[in-house]
Amino acid sequence: MSLSLKSLYRLLSLLLVVAAPAGAQSIRGFTTSGVAPQREWEARYQQIPDPMRQREYLRRLSARPHHVGSPYQRQNAEYMRDLFTSWGWDATLAEYHVLFPTPKVRRLELTAPTRYVAKLQEPSLKNDPATAFMAEQLPSYNAFSGDGDVSGPLVYVNYGVPADYDELEKRGISVRGAIVIARYGGSWRGIKPKVAFEHGAVGCIIYSDPRDDGYAQGDVYPNGPWRPKDGVQRGSVLDMPVAPGDPLTIGTGATPDAPRIDRKDATTIMKIPVLPISYEDAQPLLAAMGGPVAPESWRGALPITYRLGGSGPARVRLAVEHDWKLTPAFNVIATLKGSAAPDEWIVRGNHIDGWVNGAQDPIAGMAAELEEARALGELARQGWRPKRTIVYAGWDAEEPALLGSTEWVEHHAPELRQKAVAYINTDGNGRGFLGAGGSHSLERFINEVAREVRDPETGLTVWQRLQAQTIRNGSPQAKREARERGDLRIGALGSGSDYTPFIQHLGIASLNLGFGGEDGGGIYHSIYDTPRWYETFSDSNYVYGRALSQVVGLAVMRLASADVLPYQFTNLAETLRGYAGEVKVLRDELSARAAETNRMLDDGVIAATEDPRAPLKPPAREALVPYLNFAPLDNAIEAFGRAASGYERSLGSALQRAPDGAALTRANAMLRDTERQFSSPEGLPRRPWYKHLLYAPGLYTGYGVKTLPGVREAIEQKDWDTVAREVTRLAQAIDRAATHVAAISAVLEGK
Amino acid sequence: MSLSLKSLYRLLSLLLVVAAPAGAQSIRGFTTSGVAPQREWEARYQQIPDPMRQREYLRRLSARPHHVGSPYQRQNAEYMRDLFTSWGWDATLAEYHVLFPTPKVRRLELTAPTRYVAKLQEPSLKNDPATAFMAEQLPSYNAFSGDGDVSGPLVYVNYGVPADYDELEKRGISVRGAIVIARYGGSWRGIKPKVAFEHGAVGCIIYSDPRDDGYAQGDVYPNGPWRPKDGVQRGSVLDMPVAPGDPLTIGTGATPDAPRIDRKDATTIMKIPVLPISYEDAQPLLAAMGGPVAPESWRGALPITYRLGGSGPARVRLAVEHDWKLTPAFNVIATLKGSAAPDEWIVRGNHIDGWVNGAQDPIAGMAAELEEARALGELARQGWRPKRTIVYAGWDAEEPALLGSTEWVEHHAPELRQKAVAYINTDGNGRGFLGAGGSHSLERFINEVAREVRDPETGLTVWQRLQAQTIRNGSPQAKREARERGDLRIGALGSGSDYTPFIQHLGIASLNLGFGGEDGGGIYHSIYDTPRWYETFSDSNYVYGRALSQVVGLAVMRLASADVLPYQFTNLAETLRGYAGEVKVLRDELSARAAETNRMLDDGVIAATEDPRAPLKPPAREALVPYLNFAPLDNAIEAFGRAASGYERSLGSALQRAPDGAALTRANAMLRDTERQFSSPEGLPRRPWYKHLLYAPGLYTGYGVKTLPGVREAIEQKDWDTVAREVTRLAQAIDRAATHVAAISAVLEGK
Repeated sequence: MSLSLKSLYRLLSLLLVVAAPAGAQSIRGFTTSGVAPQREWEARYQQIPDPMRQREYLRRLSARPHHVGSPYQRQNAEYMRDLFTSWGWDATLAEYHVLFPTPKVRRLELTAPTRYVAKLQEPSLKNDPATAFMAEQLPSYNAFSGDGDVSGPLVYVNYGVPADYDELEKRGISVRGAIVIARYGGSWRGIKPKVAFEHGAVGCIIYSDPRDDGYAQGDVYPNGPWRPKDGVQRGSVLDMPVAPGDPLTIGTGATPDAPRIDRKDATTIMKIPVLPISYEDAQPLLAAMGGPVAPESWRGALPITYRLGGSGPARVRLAVEHDWKLTPAFNVIATLKGSAAPDEWIVRGNHIDGWVNGAQDPIAGMAAELEEARALGELARQGWRPKRTIVYAGWDAEEPALLGSTEWVEHHAPELRQKAVAYINTDGNGRGFLGAGGSHSLERFINEVAREVRDPETGLTVWQRLQAQTIRNGSPQAKREARERGDLRIGALGSGSDYTPFIQHLGIASLNLGFGGEDGGGIYHSIYDTPRWYETFSDSNYVYGRALSQVVGLAVMRLASADVLPYQFTNLAETLRGYAGEVKVLRDELSARAAETNRMLDDGVIAATEDPRAPLKPPAREALVPYLNFAPLDNAIEAFGRAASGYERSLGSALQRAPDGAALTRANAMLRDTERQFSSPEGLPRRPWYKHLLYAPGLYTGYGVKTLPGVREAIEQKDWDTVAREVTRLAQAIDRAATHVAAISAVLEGK
Repeated sequence: MSLSLKSLYRLLSLLLVVAAPAGAQSIRGFTTSGVAPQREWEARYQQIPDPMRQREYLRRLSARPHHVGSPYQRQNAEYMRDLFTSWGWDATLAEYHVLFPTPKVRRLELTAPTRYVAKLQEPSLKNDPATAFMAEQLPSYNAFSGDGDVSGPLVYVNYGVPADYDELEKRGISVRGAIVIARYGGSWRGIKPKVAFEHGAVGCIIYSDPRDDGYAQGDVYPNGPWRPKDGVQRGSVLDMPVAPGDPLTIGTGATPDAPRIDRKDATTIMKIPVLPISYEDAQPLLAAMGGPVAPESWRGALPITYRLGGSGPARVRLAVEHDWKLTPAFNVIATLKGSAAPDEWIVRGNHIDGWVNGAQDPIAGMAAELEEARALGELARQGWRPKRTIVYAGWDAEEPALLGSTEWVEHHAPELRQKAVAYINTDGNGRGFLGAGGSHSLERFINEVAREVRDPETGLTVWQRLQAQTIRNGSPQAKREARERGDLRIGALGSGSDYTPFIQHLGIASLNLGFGGEDGGGIYHSIYDTPRWYETFSDSNYVYGRALSQVVGLAVMRLASADVLPYQFTNLAETLRGYAGEVKVLRDELSARAAETNRMLDDGVIAATEDPRAPLKPPAREALVPYLNFAPLDNAIEAFGRAASGYERSLGSALQRAPDGAALTRANAMLRDTERQFSSPEGLPRRPWYKHLLYAPGLYTGYGVKTLPGVREAIEQKDWDTVAREVTRLAQAIDRAATHVAAISAVLEGK
C-alpha cells in the first residue's frame, strides 16, 4: 500500500464533499421506511464474501481444461449445482445440445519462397502444472471457421477491418484468391474472416503480434503476464453480430429435440477456413512477404519489415477440418424464490466454460458469483426475504458462441419477456477500477451501488476511485463530466458476453460489471490462463473478487427488494440526446469528407502529390451526402425527456407517501416492461435477431457497440432510404417509451 | 510517370486560376521597364543547369571520404575553386585553423550481467565501392564529446529530452552516476548528452533504433534505402544552441593567428563521453536492462522488452578519448562582382565536407550550387551584368560545428554587417517537394521564385506542387491557408546548417532551400551515404538537382538585380502576430496545467488512482502562473504592421514612377539593414552569441526553432522576470523596425 491512512481519510472526505448526492441515506426505489432494514441486510451481506473461498473455487474449477463437452466441465457444473443446493438454492442443470465444432485437421505451411510448417502448439510449462493436461486441451483454433484446404499468396491486412481494405486498394492490392493474415486487435476477431471473405479471400490467418500483447508490453509468461512466443488466442468466429447461439436453431432453444436446419444452410458459420497462430509461427510467414511496406500504424513489434504481400513471393497452404458434432451444454440454474413478487425475476450470470483452463476468463467472475450466492443463501437462513425471485446462472458454452445463455434465453423467451426485471452479467474479473456498462435506465442505480462498496487498494469507494480515474485519464469531456455530473457515465453494451440475448434479443435491462485496468496480460484464450497466472499477475488475494461480489450482490438485493423498481430515465434521455448528436455529426463529417475528396480531385491536388515511384490509386469521386431529417428523433427524445422528468417527480412523492400495494404492483409491472419499448419485433436491418433499437454490436466491429444501430449503420453505409426508415422506427419506439413512462407516473400518482 | 499530359495541363490551369497573383508578369522589386530584360535573362538561365554535370560533380566529390582535414577534402576544395575560376568567378580558398577532435580510443562494453563488446564498425559493401576506403573513413563517433573512461548502470532515456526525464522521475529512476542510452530522434543529438549531464549522468550512448530509420521503415541498404544493422549516425554534440563554431574562438574568426582560449575553459564542449552506436550494438545492451517497462511511446522496433534500467543488472563501461588538434579548414569563396552596387552582397552557400563520403549530405546540394555558378558565369559571358556582388561559398567543416561558415562570418563580421543583403543556404538535396525556411521578410519573394520553376515529376511549378502537398497532408489550418493565402508559409530557421551565423549572429536575412519528402532513408552520417545510394534511392537522374539550381539561381539573380531589394514586411507582421498568439497560448496552457495538477492533488485524484504494484511519484504542487503583460509586444507588432502596409503602397508607386537613383540607393541600403533591427547587441539570455530576437534554435531542442526565443523560453522556464524584460526588449526591436520601414517608405516617396 502506498497511501497512508491519514491521506486516505483526507481524500475520502474531500471526494465525498464533491460527490455525495443529497440525502445519501436514501436508496432509490425504497420507501422512506424501507431504507433502514435494507441497509441493515446490506451491511450484513457485505461481511460475508470471502476471498479465500473464491481462491478455492478458482483453483478447483480451473485446475484442468473445462470447455463445453469436456469431462471436467461436466464435473464443474455438477460441483457448482451442488454448492448452490448446499446454500439453500433450488439448483439444476439445464441441458442443450449445441453445434460445437472441434478441429480434426489443422495445417499451415509456407510453401514459397521457402518452406515452413507452423507448429500450432502451445507448450506446457514445468512451473505451471495447470498447463500440463495436453490430452484434455482444445488445440488452438477458431470455432465456426469453415472447413477447407486452400492455397494462395499471402496478404497482410492489419486488423482486417473494412478501412484496412481501403488502404490496400489504394496500393493496388487485392485479396481475391489470397489468404489473408491479420493481427488480433482493432475489432472482434470474427470480423476479420468475414470481411476477408467479402473481399474474395479464400482463407484467413489471425496472429497475436508481440506489440499488442507480447514482449513489447513486458515480460512474457511465466516470467511476466504477457503472451509467450508460442501463445495462441483461441476464439469464436461465428457471425455473432448477425445472431449468436447455435447456428442450427437461431431463435429457438437448442433442446435435444429442437428442429434444426441443415448445417450447409447456416448463415452465421464462416465460409472460409480460419486459423489463429502464435507470433513464433507468424514471423516466418510475415518475413517472407513481398510487396509495398505496410503503413506505419500497421507495423508490429517483430524484427522485420512488415509488408503487404499480394503477388508474392510468399505463398501458404491452409487446411482446416472440423468434427461438426452436437455437444451437450449444461447451464447451472439456481433460484431463490421471491416472497412478494415471485414472478418478477432478477437474473445474474457468468459463464463457466473456458477455452482451456480459463482461470481469469471466466472463473474469476464465477468465483465471485458463487460467493454472492453463498452470502445470499446465508442471509436467507438469517431471515432475509427478497420480494422478487433471484435466478443465478452459470452459462456453459459461452466461448464458442454464447451458446448456453442464448439457447436458454430463446428456450424461455416468453417467460423471460414476462418476468425478467434485469440481467446482471460478469465475465471474469481483474484488478483496478470498476467497469460498468449497460442499459442507461440503470445508470443512476449502479452509480448508487458503486458508492457503497470499498475499493480494496485505497479504501475509497469503488465509485470514488472510478471517478478519480476518469478525472485523471479521461478525455477533456469525460473529465469535466466526472467532476460535475452526479453520475459517472456507463458505456453501452455491444456484444461479447452473455448479456447479449437478454438485452438485445429480449429487451431486458442489463448490466455488465467487472474490475480491471491495473492488470495487463497476454494469456487470453490460451493454455496459460491458469490459477498461477491469475494469482501472480492479477487479483492475487481475491480482494477484487470480494469487491465484485459486494457490488453485484448489493445490486441484486436492491433490485430484488425495492418497493419501486429502481430504473431512472432522465439519464437515459440525456444519453439519447448525446447519441442523436453523434449521428448528426457523423453525417456532417461524411458530408465534409466527400466534399473535400471531390474538391481535391477537381483541383488536381491528388494527382499533383503523387509519388511516381510509389503511386497510390486516387480516391473515387464521392456522391454528395444529403441533409437528413432528424426532427422525428429529436421530438421523440424531447418527449421522452419530459416523461422522464415527470416520472422523477411522481416517484419522489410516491416513495414518501408509500402508495398502496396494488398501485406499486402495477407500476412495477409497467417499469419492468419499459426497456421492452425499445425492442422492435422486426429487429434491425439485415439481422432480425437483434431487436433493441438503442444498442447493438456493430456489424463490422463485432464486440464494439453501435448505439442507435439502425440509424448509425445506415448513415455509415450511406443508405439514405434506410436512414429515413430507421429514424422513423426509432422515433416511434422512443415515443412509445415516453407514453409508457408517463403512464407509470400516472399509476404512481394514483390516477 | 503516372500522370497523362492531358490531366497535367488540366491541373495546371485549375491551380493557376486559384493561385496565381494578379499581374503575374511583374517581378517584385523591379521597375515596370526592368521586368522584361530580367525575364529574358531568367529564361536563358533556366536552360543551363545540367543534371548530367551534377552527376559528374557528385560522383567526383563523393568518391572517397572527405571530412575536414582529409587529403581528399583538400583536393575537392581545390577542384571546386578551379571550377569557379574556369567559369569566370574570382575564387579563392579561405583557410581557418579549427579545433577538430578525432577519436583515439572508442570502447563500449556491457560488463554485467553478461559481457558484450560493441563492434563500433560499419562494414564495407562489395557492391558499393565508395564504402571501401576504410583507412580514410572517420570512425563512428560524436565530435566534441568529452574524454573519459566511465562505468555505471545503464538507463534508457528515450530521446533524452527534458520531458523524458520527467517520466523517469515519476518512476523513481535517477541517472545520477549512470550511463544513459538514448535513441536518435526527437531532438538534435547534442541535446541528449547535455541534458544527461545536467541530470548527473557520467556518459551517454546514442543509438539508431530500427523503428526510426531501420528495418521497420523498409529494406535496409544495400537492398533498400534504410539503415543497416551496423549503420551508425556520426555527428556533432558541441553545444551549438549556445554558440556554434570553434569553441576556442567564440565570436572571432579562427584565423591561424587568432587568440584562443584554453580548451579546458571552453564552455560548449560536452562534459561527458558520448558515443553513437548501431542497433546491432545496442540490442544486447537494451536486452540486458532491468527496471520498469518503458512507456509505450518509448518503445522501438527491436524484438525485446524496452526497459528503463536504473539499479541494474545492466552495467556498461564507456571509454572515449580524442586527439584535440587544430585542423586547417578551407572554404571555397567565389565572387562575381556587381556592376552598380558592388558593396551589396548576395551570399549563397552549401557545405563541402561530409562525415564520410557525404553524397546526399552535403554534395547533392553543392552539385546544384556548382551548376548555378556555371550558369551564372555563362550568362555573364553573354553580357549579363548583375547590379550587386554575388558571393558563392563552399563551407568546410560544417559537420563538426558549422566551423567553416561561422569562422568566416565572424572573421568578416563588420564587412558582412555592412554589405550582406541576404544569405541563401542549401545543405544536400532530395526528391519531392520544395522545402523553404527563412526570414519572413523574404517569404513573398521566395513564393514568387517558386512559381517560376517546374517540378520535374509533374510539370507543375514547384510552388503548385508544394501547395497541393500542403492541402493534401497539412493540418486543417495549413490546408485552409494553402488554399486561401496568397503565399505559402515558410518555416522559421532554428539551426543545423550554415545559415546560422548569417541570420542569428549578424541579422542577415536568410533562406534555406531544398527538395525532399519522397525519399526516406537511413544512411545519414554513415559510410553508406554514397553516390550509389543517392542514385538508387533519391534523385536518381539529378532532375531535382536541376530544379534546385533553378530555384536558387533565380533567387540570386533577382536579389542581385532588383531595383528595390525585394523584401516584403506585411507577411512578417502577420507571422509575428501569430507568434505573439502562440506565446500567449503557451502561458495559458501552462496556467491551466498547473491549476489542473494542483486540483488533482487537492482532490486526491492522483493518490486515488495509484497502482500499488507500479507506484508513480505524484507530481509536485505547481506555482500559479501569473498573467503577463504582452501589451508592448502587441502594440509594437501593430505599429510594424502599419509600417509594412505603408511600405507596400510606397513601393508600388515608386516602381511605377521609377524614382531617381539616389533615392533607390538610399532605400536599398536601408532595406538591407531591416533584418538587423531585430538583432540585439546583447544577444539572448544565457547565449549572447545569438543576437536575433525573432528566431533561434531552442536551448533544449537544438535544431528546432524557437520563435521569439527570449520570451518563449522564459515562459517555458517560468522565469517571469525574464519574460517581462524580454517582452520589452523584443517590443523595442519591433518598434525600431517599424520606424525603420516607415523611413524607407519616406525615402521611396521622395520625402
